[in-house]
Amino acid sequence: MSALQNRQVLLKSRPVGIPQAEHFEIRSTPVPEIGEGESLVRNLFLSVEPAMRGWVNAASNYSRPVGIGEVMRAFAVGRVVQSRNPKYPEGTVVMGLLGWQEYAITDGSPVRRIVKETDLPLSLSLGVLGLNGITAYFGLNAVGQPKAGETVVVSTAAGAVGSLVGQLAKLQGCRTVGIAGGDVKRRLCLEEFAYDAAIDYREPGLEASLAAACPDGVDVFFDNTSGQISDTVIRHINRRARIVICGTASIPSWDPWPEGPRVDRHLLNKSARMEGFLAFDYEHRYEEAIDFLAPLVRKGQLRYREEILDGIEAAPGSIADLYESRNLGKRLIRLPDA
Amino acid sequence: MSALQNRQVLLKSRPVGIPQAEHFEIRSTPVPEIGEGESLVRNLFLSVEPAMRGWVNAASNYSRPVGIGEVMRAFAVGRVVQSRNPKYPEGTVVMGLLGWQEYAITDGSPVRRIVKETDLPLSLSLGVLGLNGITAYFGLNAVGQPKAGETVVVSTAAGAVGSLVGQLAKLQGCRTVGIAGGDVKRRLCLEEFAYDAAIDYREPGLEASLAAACPDGVDVFFDNTSGQISDTVIRHINRRARIVICGTASIPSWDPWPEGPRVDRHLLNKSARMEGFLAFDYEHRYEEAIDFLAPLVRKGQLRYREEILDGIEAAPGSIADLYESRNLGKRLIRLPDA
Repeated sequence: MSALQNRQVLLKSRPVGIPQAEHFEIRSTPVPEIGEGESLVRNLFLSVEPAMRGWVNAASNYSRPVGIGEVMRAFAVGRVVQSRNPKYPEGTVVMGLLGWQEYAITDGSPVRRIVKETDLPLSLSLGVLGLNGITAYFGLNAVGQPKAGETVVVSTAAGAVGSLVGQLAKLQGCRTVGIAGGDVKRRLCLEEFAYDAAIDYREPGLEASLAAACPDGVDVFFDNTSGQISDTVIRHINRRARIVICGTASIPSWDPWPEGPRVDRHLLNKSARMEGFLAFDYEHRYEEAIDFLAPLVRKGQLRYREEILDGIEAAPGSIADLYESRNLGKRLIRLPDA
Repeated sequence: MSALQNRQVLLKSRPVGIPQAEHFEIRSTPVPEIGEGESLVRNLFLSVEPAMRGWVNAASNYSRPVGIGEVMRAFAVGRVVQSRNPKYPEGTVVMGLLGWQEYAITDGSPVRRIVKETDLPLSLSLGVLGLNGITAYFGLNAVGQPKAGETVVVSTAAGAVGSLVGQLAKLQGCRTVGIAGGDVKRRLCLEEFAYDAAIDYREPGLEASLAAACPDGVDVFFDNTSGQISDTVIRHINRRARIVICGTASIPSWDPWPEGPRVDRHLLNKSARMEGFLAFDYEHRYEEAIDFLAPLVRKGQLRYREEILDGIEAAPGSIADLYESRNLGKRLIRLPDA
C-alpha cells in the first residue's frame, strides 16, 4: 500500500464566524498499513454542512472543537477496501465521521452505520438517508410531535433538512408553511417540496405574510435560523406549541453572544416548549429513521436535491456558501471512484 | 338578604407595569337574591399573587385582562351560606376565582375545587394546598421531571411557590439550590426550606456562586424571575436540562418587550428544553396534587409561610410589595369570620 497517497483537508487556523477556504490546507500523506482490528475505507462522498462552523469554532459547543492541524471532522460515505476487522469486511459500505480525506483508517468507532440501501445512490446516505433525514425525522417527530391538522412552520424550508421536514409533516396531514430566502427557494418550497404556503423572508412584511399563511396560528416551528425569523414566528405560536431548535444559521457568531427579544414570556403565555436537539441524541434509533425514509425515497414520495462538487480540492471553500443562501440542496464532495 | 352589604375591589384604571393601590377602588353594594342554580359564598380568605399583574395589564397574556370597573379577579376560599345548587350545599367550603370581594354569587363555574381538607387551616387552600402547591407540584414533576441525584435550581426560592418546589425536589432526592433576594430569604432557604445551598442574587458574583453551588451543573431550573438570574443559570445547564418557566417576576413590563441573551443556542448545544406552563393546564389533575401534598403538610414534611393582611381595605395595595422582594410567604387577605 505504500504507493497509495491520501489527500487530507486539515484545519490550518481557527476561524471566528464562518470558515473560509483560507482556514484549511490540503496535505498528501502515504496511506499506512492497517493494524489488527482496523479497516481502510476509500471515501466516495464527503459531506459539507452548516454544523461545521460550530465544529471548528473555539466557543463552547456540543462537541470538542477540531484541533489545528487535525483532519477536518466530516461525515463521509466510503467502501472498505482492506480490512482486519470482521465487523467491516471488504466491500462494506460505511457512513460515519471519516473526515475530509480520501482514505480513512478506522477501528470502527467513527462509523455511524453500515449502509444497507446500496440499491440507491450512495450519496443519499449523507443526505436524505443520512444525517439530514435522521435530523428531520427525529426533530419533527420526537421533538416537534405534530398532529394531523396542525400547522408546521419550517425555516430554511428549502434546505437539506428543512425540505424533508416539510414533506414529512405534509405526509402526516399537517399544514406546512416554509420560510426561505429568495424567490427561487420560495418557489422550490411550493413546487418541489409540497409546502402549502411559502414565504420569502427577504421580502418586506414577514409578520403579515406569516399571519396570512398561518390563519390558525403555529403549532410546530422547526427552526434552523434563530434571529429575526424566529423572533417573528414565536409571536404567532398557539397554546402548547413546540419550537424545535435545529440550527441557528442566521447568527454569524456567538462571540459576543447576541441578544434578542426574550422568549420566556411567550412560552409562559402559551404553555409552549422550546427544545434543542442533535441527531446524535437519537443514535440508537438511526435505523428506525432510515427504514421509514428509504421506502419513501424509492416510491418517489420524498424529494431531495443534491449539489455535488468534484474533488477534494473543492472542500475548503465549500462551507461559506451554505451561509449565504446560495446553495440548493445537500452539498457534497464527490471523490474519484464514486 | 337585602341588608347584607358586599364590599368589592374594582379595577379603576389600567396600570402599566405593577398594579398599585391607586389602580383600584372599593365599592359597597347590596348582596342580591340568588337565583336557581346559584350559591352565595361568604369569602374567608382572598389571595394576592404575582400573576395579578398580568391579569390587569393590557398586553396579550394567557387570559383576558380584567375590565375597568370589574371586580378584581382573584382566587378566594369561602363557605357557601345560601344555595340553590345541589352541587354546593350550604356549609361547603369552595376555592376558586371568587374575586376580591366579601361575597360571591356563583353558578359554580368559577369554583376550582371543593375543599376537603377542613381539618387544616382553610387559608392553606390558597397556598400550599392551593394554586401554589399545585403549581409547584406540576411545574416540578410534569414539566421539570427531576430524577434523584439531579441538581434542581429554583429562583424566588423562598417564595410561596419556590419554597415548595425546593422541598418537593429535596424529598425526591435531588440536590436543591435556591436563589433569593437578600440575606433573610437566603437564610430562610437553608434553615426552613431545606435547600442544600442558597444564593443571594443581590450579592456580587452570582455566576461564581452558582457554579460553586452546582458542581455537577444544573439539570432542572425552575424559573420564576426571567432577566439576569435566568441568563446566568442557563449558562450552567447540563445536557438534556429542563427549564421550567413559571413566572417572570424580575421584568417590570413587557411593553416594550425586553431583550436578553438568546437562549436557543444554549438549548441546542445541550439538547435542553425550556417550557412554560400554567397551573390551569393541569386543572383536571388538581386533586392528585392536593392528595400528595396534604399528607406532607399534616406530617410536617412540607413547610410554608403565610403573610396575612386583615380586611378587604388591605387588598388594593397588596400586590406591589410582591415585586419588591419584601414579603415572606404566601400573601393573603383575611376577611371577618375567617
